[in-house]
Amino acid sequence: MKIGICGATGYSGRELIRILLHHPKVQIAFLTSEQYANQSIADVYPELRSKISVLCQPVDQLPPKGTLDFVFLALPHTVSMKVAKVFLAQGTRVIDLSGDYRLSASLYETWYQHPHEDVENLSKAVYGLSEIFRDKIKKATFVSNPGCYPTAASLGLVPALKGGFIDPQGIVIDAKSGVSGAGRGLSLGTHFVEVYENMKAYKIAVHQHTPEIEQVLKNFTSANIHVTFVPHLIPLEKGILSTMYAFLAKKVKTENLVEAYQKFYQNEPFIRVLPLGNYPQTKNVYGSNFCDIGLQVDERTNRVIVISVIDNMVKGASGQAVQNMNLMCGLAETMGLL
Amino acid sequence: MKIGICGATGYSGRELIRILLHHPKVQIAFLTSEQYANQSIADVYPELRSKISVLCQPVDQLPPKGTLDFVFLALPHTVSMKVAKVFLAQGTRVIDLSGDYRLSASLYETWYQHPHEDVENLSKAVYGLSEIFRDKIKKATFVSNPGCYPTAASLGLVPALKGGFIDPQGIVIDAKSGVSGAGRGLSLGTHFVEVYENMKAYKIAVHQHTPEIEQVLKNFTSANIHVTFVPHLIPLEKGILSTMYAFLAKKVKTENLVEAYQKFYQNEPFIRVLPLGNYPQTKNVYGSNFCDIGLQVDERTNRVIVISVIDNMVKGASGQAVQNMNLMCGLAETMGLL
Amino acid sequence: MKIGICGATGYSGRELIRILLHHPKVQIAFLTSEQYANQSIADVYPELRSKISVLCQPVDQLPPKGTLDFVFLALPHTVSMKVAKVFLAQGTRVIDLSGDYRLSASLYETWYQHPHEDVENLSKAVYGLSEIFRDKIKKATFVSNPGCYPTAASLGLVPALKGGFIDPQGIVIDAKSGVSGAGRGLSLGTHFVEVYENMKAYKIAVHQHTPEIEQVLKNFTSANIHVTFVPHLIPLEKGILSTMYAFLAKKVKTENLVEAYQKFYQNEPFIRVLPLGNYPQTKNVYGSNFCDIGLQVDERTNRVIVISVIDNMVKGASGQAVQNMNLMCGLAETMGLL
Amino acid sequence: MKIGICGATGYSGRELIRILLHHPKVQIAFLTSEQYANQSIADVYPELRSKISVLCQPVDQLPPKGTLDFVFLALPHTVSMKVAKVFLAQGTRVIDLSGDYRLSASLYETWYQHPHEDVENLSKAVYGLSEIFRDKIKKATFVSNPGCYPTAASLGLVPALKGGFIDPQGIVIDAKSGVSGAGRGLSLGTHFVEVYENMKAYKIAVHQHTPEIEQVLKNFTSANIHVTFVPHLIPLEKGILSTMYAFLAKKVKTENLVEAYQKFYQNEPFIRVLPLGNYPQTKNVYGSNFCDIGLQVDERTNRVIVISVIDNMVKGASGQAVQNMNLMCGLAETMGLL
Repeated sequence: MKIGICGATGYSGRELIRILLHHPKVQIAFLTSEQYANQSIADVYPELRSKISVLCQPVDQLPPKGTLDFVFLALPHTVSMKVAKVFLAQGTRVIDLSGDYRLSASLYETWYQHPHEDVENLSKAVYGLSEIFRDKIKKATFVSNPGCYPTAASLGLVPALKGGFIDPQGIVIDAKSGVSGAGRGLSLGTHFVEVYENMKAYKIAVHQHTPEIEQVLKNFTSANIHVTFVPHLIPLEKGILSTMYAFLAKKVKTENLVEAYQKFYQNEPFIRVLPLGNYPQTKNVYGSNFCDIGLQVDERTNRVIVISVIDNMVKGASGQAVQNMNLMCGLAETMGLL
Repeated sequence: MKIGICGATGYSGRELIRILLHHPKVQIAFLTSEQYANQSIADVYPELRSKISVLCQPVDQLPPKGTLDFVFLALPHTVSMKVAKVFLAQGTRVIDLSGDYRLSASLYETWYQHPHEDVENLSKAVYGLSEIFRDKIKKATFVSNPGCYPTAASLGLVPALKGGFIDPQGIVIDAKSGVSGAGRGLSLGTHFVEVYENMKAYKIAVHQHTPEIEQVLKNFTSANIHVTFVPHLIPLEKGILSTMYAFLAKKVKTENLVEAYQKFYQNEPFIRVLPLGNYPQTKNVYGSNFCDIGLQVDERTNRVIVISVIDNMVKGASGQAVQNMNLMCGLAETMGLL
Repeated sequence: MKIGICGATGYSGRELIRILLHHPKVQIAFLTSEQYANQSIADVYPELRSKISVLCQPVDQLPPKGTLDFVFLALPHTVSMKVAKVFLAQGTRVIDLSGDYRLSASLYETWYQHPHEDVENLSKAVYGLSEIFRDKIKKATFVSNPGCYPTAASLGLVPALKGGFIDPQGIVIDAKSGVSGAGRGLSLGTHFVEVYENMKAYKIAVHQHTPEIEQVLKNFTSANIHVTFVPHLIPLEKGILSTMYAFLAKKVKTENLVEAYQKFYQNEPFIRVLPLGNYPQTKNVYGSNFCDIGLQVDERTNRVIVISVIDNMVKGASGQAVQNMNLMCGLAETMGLL
Repeated sequence: MKIGICGATGYSGRELIRILLHHPKVQIAFLTSEQYANQSIADVYPELRSKISVLCQPVDQLPPKGTLDFVFLALPHTVSMKVAKVFLAQGTRVIDLSGDYRLSASLYETWYQHPHEDVENLSKAVYGLSEIFRDKIKKATFVSNPGCYPTAASLGLVPALKGGFIDPQGIVIDAKSGVSGAGRGLSLGTHFVEVYENMKAYKIAVHQHTPEIEQVLKNFTSANIHVTFVPHLIPLEKGILSTMYAFLAKKVKTENLVEAYQKFYQNEPFIRVLPLGNYPQTKNVYGSNFCDIGLQVDERTNRVIVISVIDNMVKGASGQAVQNMNLMCGLAETMGLL
């Protein structure tokens, strides 16, 4: 299967290459890069020397119909929707890793502060949270890959919400992310000296992943759900830890909740619900497509605390994209990912 | 003023020395260390070479009455209460940095899982959250210095609670701390390779600082307050960032809340309430006794988010201890700290 | 092929497991751990949950002859030679990752300050620097895997020495290593707060890898070679960067040296000699079995500077061990490693 | 004393402000910043809130003669020489922290690849390595502050060279620096994700500090000295560790060398020669103006290894600049620095 990656030199693109080089059914046939056009990907990322030597093309020179079997878009939002429509018009299957096709046009406009320019394909995009929307993804030709925070938060909250364990109102999501989530672009906010030995919250209550999380959760409650979401920047490279607080809707012990989660995810190859008294650490999912989940009821405050961790570049981006490609193409879901 | 530090070779002890070396009214006359008894403090911490060369004494050889004017105890909890009573019996003024004198005997027993062995002095200890209990501290001869997490959380929540802006029920405190808070003792949990490129929550809903926070807050509400408190370990050396979530008790805009906080803390030399749209970072308080506070109302969820940062070793431990010493001794509150 | 790992819960053991889980010809059948005896390896390293669940055995309960086809010893030095002889007596093939079988008995005694207790097998051990001693390794049943520093240094110096480009006298090796090289044992020297934002040299001119490097180099010169070797501890997890300084033995330009190195290593799958003007970074070999080498002639001082980087846990330990296993077993040398 | 800082918002400028805020004889009266013109310095560096609120001026609006008593230039090289001449023409005393006035015009042109534009003042500049050129600095009105690497290297080598202990030929300087040395400008080379968990050498044998080091050393030998100098980028914020290798010119034991160094520096408040068997760590000089030096003779290779550490922003830049200001102004040399 010949695949292409648009935006190959950003961190999601790099991670896609890393993963796909080990995928037995895939040949990386086409790469684009605005900044490194006409350079070999191995010159941009010297770790790839002797492994791959594809030239990066400018994004305005897309290959003709039939050249590629599958395309990943690892482009900035607003750019992605310009490119997606070209490939979709060709009939090429596409997974878009940007935020462009995750929200309704009106929510997009509100939270991304930019009009949506491809409403037609927006209605066709299937939201690619693999474990939750597997059946739709299998039939899809166009998948919108979830954001990193929504992946960690949704996988942590859906079993509790669907099981009626928690009140859909009053949920707090306090998320902590490594710096790769901010991308490879240059800004003072990613300068080593500014990030190292530092922590901060950012986009407090206005992050564009907020409505994306709510949209997933709405599938499992009739309530008009609103979450309080605060992301934080932490001085490490990869990893998201999401700590979620919800009021219990019924009396339940931690062990019952652990059991319910383990049952919910019992056939999932990439979800590990930790045993009672065990809690996740980002290091345990570093470089992998796993999501680890830990649970604790706080009886004093009638709350449940759910903690989920992912590698933001893998399950939070490129790994889940490959998982979705596998689903869309009828391959084993874990191919290239374990 | 001749001062002593018991437990001088732990991180709080080291920080006390660093600060007191610049304090114009203090002479460091006595140090103890269990592990480094009979060694010079400058051999234990070579950064101190040429600055101080006091020998560390074993903790069971305390100096006779009258030798010291003031003593700081930077000892592990349960050890501190053995030593405090000796100095207090001498009439020496004491600040205890451990958790031994912060809670009632019954709460102590529940949360520290150890009986209290000095109930007599416990009743005399004044809780040393300088900005909140200044008047009592000024008259005290024995101060129990607050925990790092309670300092950050309380300073962030008191103005909102006292001002009636927030509902005392349903408060969530999601705190992130650097590794120095775990002390200098050896454990896998502080091994570089285990901490670096990693994050985790720990002591979820069972951390012994929980009742300490509640005890402070109870001064400002008639409600039987219970907070949900989850601390996290973050790969940096120093700094606590505490993100706090509370339901609004009345309709208020972020700018009004900022004003209220600025008014509340207007004369405080160590509290900086940040202007509207500004949020704190731990780096801005690194090595200093400041607590920076940022505020944001989330109208979608009727919540306020308060973010406070401190250096856990300074305002969260040794800096606040020196601030309290200044208060107790009638010195300028900021002496040696700006 | 059923393999065993003695010392499975140290960092080299963990890395062996990580690699061998992807090796198509290997089944991990036996693990030992002194500290975690009778616990599942997945409880010690939760990243392994759902991947492997072998119980760790105490090291004094080795399996009978015929149980295992191949054994890796990832034990501390002095312990390894006690275990190696048992397996070798069984006729089981062994790779020892400790320093126990790398030096002559007399050099061992001098540099490790401990008598050698298995001189018999010492004489049978083949030194496993794969690229340099491949032919001997292929025929070996017992391989002593090189140290991390000697691997990086030797791969960087051998081509220059063998090609007669450099003076064998006066070589300086300034090596920088991440903290995983210090192992998982607890000591103040690996406490996060002591290592972070810090650098130091250690074992200056007395490190036990010094004679190991000299022993390799002596194969390529008639001179009685002595190198000056200074290792440094750097605040990162994995990676060695070795900067080597040698006097030129003949006038040569950087480009000629690059060519000579590229020719020397032209068929090597794991050595990447970087093009003129390119220099290695540890990040480019992170998690891989590659050794990247960069070269620069300093005409002003008639010196060549060779820089080599490896992942100390992979090419510097467990990856090279698997490479050697492949060679010993007639498998493709890169199996499980690319 | 009213002082000005041109280039106040770079890291050297920030460090000057941090130090001078504690200097009893100085008032910070004037700041410039190209990028943050007309903003308060406390908005650029929020750690300075409530401490200082001077507006940054554009660098082309310098104050008239007589406004300032003393000026620090913390500007990029080539910019500095444009500004220095204005202040010098006014008769204002100046310390330049850039590389513009450290080398002869011809060396400058070779190593900085830019013609020198202020040869007149170049001849008047006194090189500000405080301990070595104190007498000249005391009389100077214009001081060129040393580079960070030359400070660490020179302080480590001068006693050995002056004492005739080492051969001036064949010196190797392997230096490791934290990232703040690269400045606050944006580049991929200082992006957190590119630097973290990474090490590299850079400007190998072509770094512009090479001739600066040689120029200092030439004061203490009649030989035409050439050093091999390789700097490395290490993932920490502040600190330089310089490991230096030289051939012994006479038989000497480590302890004799330690004694000789201790004697050489016996009256120096900022130099700490460590006792036999002790070696420096950057953490011990973090935030301070100290230079710590450790020594080891390697008898096997007839070499001495000198290790020196400094905080690159303090003794390597702004701290030494203040030390020089104190000398130039007849103040106590340590004022504001201990």
